[in-house]
Amino acid sequence: MRALVAGGAGFVGSHLVERLVDAGHEVVVVDDFSTGRRENLAAVSHQVTIVDADISDAAAVDAIEGPFDQVYNLASPASPVDYHRLPIHTLMTGSMGVKNTLDLAHAHGARYLLASTSEVYGDPQVHPQPETYLGHVNPVGPRSVYDEAKRFGEAMTAAYRREFGVDTKIVRIFNTFGPRMRVEDGRAIPNFVHQALTGREITVAGDGHQTRSICYVDDLVGGLVAMMESTATGPVNLGNPEEISMIDLATWICDLAESGSQIVHVPRPVDDPQIRRPDITLAGELLGWAPSTTAEIGLKATIEDFRNRR
Amino acid sequence: MRALVAGGAGFVGSHLVERLVDAGHEVVVVDDFSTGRRENLAAVSHQVTIVDADISDAAAVDAIEGPFDQVYNLASPASPVDYHRLPIHTLMTGSMGVKNTLDLAHAHGARYLLASTSEVYGDPQVHPQPETYLGHVNPVGPRSVYDEAKRFGEAMTAAYRREFGVDTKIVRIFNTFGPRMRVEDGRAIPNFVHQALTGREITVAGDGHQTRSICYVDDLVGGLVAMMESTATGPVNLGNPEEISMIDLATWICDLAESGSQIVHVPRPVDDPQIRRPDITLAGELLGWAPSTTAEIGLKATIEDFRNRR
Repeated sequence: MRALVAGGAGFVGSHLVERLVDAGHEVVVVDDFSTGRRENLAAVSHQVTIVDADISDAAAVDAIEGPFDQVYNLASPASPVDYHRLPIHTLMTGSMGVKNTLDLAHAHGARYLLASTSEVYGDPQVHPQPETYLGHVNPVGPRSVYDEAKRFGEAMTAAYRREFGVDTKIVRIFNTFGPRMRVEDGRAIPNFVHQALTGREITVAGDGHQTRSICYVDDLVGGLVAMMESTATGPVNLGNPEEISMIDLATWICDLAESGSQIVHVPRPVDDPQIRRPDITLAGELLGWAPSTTAEIGLKATIEDFRNRR
Repeated sequence: MRALVAGGAGFVGSHLVERLVDAGHEVVVVDDFSTGRRENLAAVSHQVTIVDADISDAAAVDAIEGPFDQVYNLASPASPVDYHRLPIHTLMTGSMGVKNTLDLAHAHGARYLLASTSEVYGDPQVHPQPETYLGHVNPVGPRSVYDEAKRFGEAMTAAYRREFGVDTKIVRIFNTFGPRMRVEDGRAIPNFVHQALTGREITVAGDGHQTRSICYVDDLVGGLVAMMESTATGPVNLGNPEEISMIDLATWICDLAESGSQIVHVPRPVDDPQIRRPDITLAGELLGWAPSTTAEIGLKATIEDFRNRR
């Protein structure tokens, strides 16, 4: 089996690439390294082909040598810090990047999996969110460069299934954490871990009673592979419905890192999103999938990785 | 003043082109004639430059000779019959077509107006719809090739304003009718007028008590020009909030056309959308705009046009 993983040098992508290599598959990674990093692929660099290309460039994608049985499209800036820095690039990756990789899958008769996001639900007014919830996204707000690009990518993927019969799958990925998150990613877990390991104050927004649902990356990768190997077309939510408050998360990370850091409270940003929590009933029914890693195990592995990278 | 009108050979576009020519402006029309028609520009064909190009083709747009002071982007298949026939083209026009024409406006320092649509509200759960309503669109449904493309186009337009300071404007156009609608357009008014003029049965879906808000095209064009000449950035709704039931509309058209056609009832299609009705408070406040043509005058002009074209 030969797979292409777009965004394979990213946080989630690189874990998926390792899983596919471990299963004995041939893997071609395409990444433009705008947010991905070569060191994420260090463990498998001699076993995979790496193509340095931007998937929104049709000619570059067309030039990638097949054949392929599977195309995983995980390419996109995904943290707010990144997509606010790269707004047009994010819009292009989510639109033309999806079309170009769909064309590639179509040309090779490959299965196609689009990594969409819980951000298609925007600032949801229904909790938890089932796949049938149509979302609450502002098309012209600053976050729309990511949210609307992903919604558009889903529409393009669904159109390729209807028009050309491409065997497409769409998953909507909720908050995920684990080794290889970037310190400068801007999200809570890498922030807290970095602050704990460097002895800085751990900055919790507001009173910290707001909650997050966080899925360990190994669990998520299991869901991606299960979806690709299933007959399901999606959209299917993948995430961990268990909620942790920010203050508990900060305390836990502080303890697990054996850090002397103090926890301090800072003002909540005005656009701090409401909580999103996945309804993963469908993933259970269609894929037999549910996350199984405890937050403690996941956080320990993440702290260990951050410590090793310092 | 020199203006580019993308989609200028279409139903709404051609009325806008005439208005701009009448005001003494130089006009360049770009249209790929996938749904637009050359005969729509018959009255002004010697006064405008017509470029036969698909705006989703970056090189073709880049080759259009400037300078331009204003870019109106009205290019897209807009009726369900058309966008279901041209799904990928619709997605491309609404994404790359918007980006390419934004690049053109940016290069020439031109103002840019995006003709968005009430379809960004999807099947709304709030009536009437103000611009702050975030919509109810299924990203993977058949209509998403149009709805999500338009939402994406709004996101791209807003990003160009934020990133590059392009002087952008977004309007959301609700149901519009008038001369030059195509008989095969598939929507209620052209259907009814054609049936009335050919003496066929007038087919009303269901009991006909469902309502539509319909704006006469001359009124809409006034709103487009007012928006372009204002300091408003939008999104701003443009449409007529007055509601007419389908059965009244059919009866009225039958009478005005002096037709002997019988009105018959046919089953409502399963995806017959819920009513959309614009809240046009913002257009009144920002543009001093409101529709002023009565439905009777608009329908008479439309019937006359359809009669002349037979």
